[in-house]
Amino acid sequence: MPVFNSRSFRDHEQVVFCSDRVTGLKAIIAVHSTALGPATGGTRFWDYGAIYKSVPVDVAESRAEEDAVYDVLRLSRGMSYKNAMAGLRLGGGKSVIIGAPKTLGTDDLMRAFGRNVNRLGGNYYAAEDVGTSPAMLAAASEATEYVCGLEGGEFGTGDPSPHTALGVFVGIKAAVRHRLNKTDLKGIRVAIQGLGHVGQYLARHLLDAGADLIVTDIVEDNINAVKAMGDVTVVKPEGIHAVDCDVFAPCALGGGLNRKTIPEIKATVIAGAANNQLEREGVEDEDLRRRGALYAPDYVINAGGIISVESEVYKERLDEDARRAKVLRIGDTLSRIFEASDRQERPTGIIANEMAEDIIRSAGEAKLAATPAAAE
Amino acid sequence: MPVFNSRSFRDHEQVVFCSDRVTGLKAIIAVHSTALGPATGGTRFWDYGAIYKSVPVDVAESRAEEDAVYDVLRLSRGMSYKNAMAGLRLGGGKSVIIGAPKTLGTDDLMRAFGRNVNRLGGNYYAAEDVGTSPAMLAAASEATEYVCGLEGGEFGTGDPSPHTALGVFVGIKAAVRHRLNKTDLKGIRVAIQGLGHVGQYLARHLLDAGADLIVTDIVEDNINAVKAMGDVTVVKPEGIHAVDCDVFAPCALGGGLNRKTIPEIKATVIAGAANNQLEREGVEDEDLRRRGALYAPDYVINAGGIISVESEVYKERLDEDARRAKVLRIGDTLSRIFEASDRQERPTGIIANEMAEDIIRSAGEAKLAATPAAAE
Repeated sequence: MPVFNSRSFRDHEQVVFCSDRVTGLKAIIAVHSTALGPATGGTRFWDYGAIYKSVPVDVAESRAEEDAVYDVLRLSRGMSYKNAMAGLRLGGGKSVIIGAPKTLGTDDLMRAFGRNVNRLGGNYYAAEDVGTSPAMLAAASEATEYVCGLEGGEFGTGDPSPHTALGVFVGIKAAVRHRLNKTDLKGIRVAIQGLGHVGQYLARHLLDAGADLIVTDIVEDNINAVKAMGDVTVVKPEGIHAVDCDVFAPCALGGGLNRKTIPEIKATVIAGAANNQLEREGVEDEDLRRRGALYAPDYVINAGGIISVESEVYKERLDEDARRAKVLRIGDTLSRIFEASDRQERPTGIIANEMAEDIIRSAGEAKLAATPAAAE
Repeated sequence: MPVFNSRSFRDHEQVVFCSDRVTGLKAIIAVHSTALGPATGGTRFWDYGAIYKSVPVDVAESRAEEDAVYDVLRLSRGMSYKNAMAGLRLGGGKSVIIGAPKTLGTDDLMRAFGRNVNRLGGNYYAAEDVGTSPAMLAAASEATEYVCGLEGGEFGTGDPSPHTALGVFVGIKAAVRHRLNKTDLKGIRVAIQGLGHVGQYLARHLLDAGADLIVTDIVEDNINAVKAMGDVTVVKPEGIHAVDCDVFAPCALGGGLNRKTIPEIKATVIAGAANNQLEREGVEDEDLRRRGALYAPDYVINAGGIISVESEVYKERLDEDARRAKVLRIGDTLSRIFEASDRQERPTGIIANEMAEDIIRSAGEAKLAATPAAAE
């Protein structure tokens, strides 16, 4: 099951295996779709072989590669959906570098990776992700201009966290309006799981809007930062999903919505910034729907960050008003998903996927129709 | 064992899986090396699943894909070696389209394939191969300029057969000089297996040089064409390899040198135009060496055709004298291989591979050293 027969293959336009003997680079770049624009998504640097330490090395390497393929196909498709639903002129892509970043992630290797990104001629733009740092991407960018999210670049857009938080805030408002029929957040009890950059900015917005906050984090400093903003209730991390509240906002690691946690959730709105909140797409979101809980699809509500990347890819001067307007549109997009989910009695995650697929398909057809045949 | 762990993976620079939902295209483009120039090699259109008709369809599709990967990796590396040994400014690449050309090979699909070739920005040039026709490549060329071997194109170089035949002729002379210590071919008995275009041109050269010919073909017209050139002995196809002669020239299908045929071969020079003459590289060539027979590596002696493609890729006006000079150099290249094989007591096929690898490695290092870091 190399690529076309991988479980996560879904008509990806191009999947590129790149290697460089000198630096030991082994990378896979997946371009899921360029129908909407250059495929944009992060570069994950991950030791896929680490979990196979107990099997013979050749078996381990094969399995690691298969896992990497599965991952990059799945994640690149996710970026297509995210960028489409955010109304961006960006397609979906992702890349993985196989190995341990600490030992393998030299500047030379990142430059070799950059050369391979460059060869795709702008079909794919790389960005930071798990295992890659701004410094590593800066090394890659010595060999290609197709890197975004660089610090201090001419078109760099800086820390995306405030924009992600703003998007989640308007998403929560849209969900509360739909599910609880309330147009403001006064007195609404929101439980925030995770107070990193995004969680803190979100807490500020919610407190300003008059919401009551129940918060948690595993880092004491993060909790203190939010305590300094106003009157909040702090709980232990393991119980946050089960607290008595209106809105549960997962803003930490993914996979938080699963067989174990869902029966314990009391909130009727689930809307937060974390990636991959559902353990299984189409399963947990359906479970939540049947229980009367409204789930805001993660990749729709947390798109505020990627929105700011668009201008960087297109080398446009950043227009703060335009960016803000696009982020605010996340609320309308979610409202349309919620309404369609009610009407069709189907889970919001699947509704969002189908909307994204429609947008991508239409754009692809329009693009194909507009492609001139090469001159004779 | 997707790609990096395929048995035929050898540090290929890029392996690109392309698909197009609308036309059903599933193709793999392998760029083995661009150290010497654009990776150039044919597009094979093959129904890899046909042999798996008796297994469940999902298993069949997986196996077919794995076979396609194995094939494209092996063949693209072969093109690197061939182009390197021919002294060309061309790297090695190959592509495969998975499926039956008769049912799947529409112009629309070939255009979709062309779009994918185009995306590689000139890193890979496609050409005709098993399952693709000039008309199919013409369809692909509507979407990309990176197709060579087109009929009637501005830089098209026409039928490559005469050049291939000339290369084989000078290769036979070099082998006869080395093994039989004779500087001309007068009275040398050459058995030609296969009288297609190349075989017929070769027969003409050999007759002009005074050689005695023993020939065969499965097509009566081909035999008659050679009979019209002069006095030749015709034998049945199944016995040609075993006739009493000095030179055996395989010019038909590959795989002719195997466990069964080698013990029956009486010739002490094996030098012909066929591709993939050895069943197993490093095995049959070593067997021949131990039996005192000199084997001219197929991809070195039959490179006359690809030599004419170089000018097409570089869009240079065809210089017939320069092309002829390059073809004639095949004799010198073979002489160096033969001498190294004697000196090292190792098979000629392996010697040629190592020479090719040295050429590619040196060029790669020179190219890397010359790559400027991108401007800040």
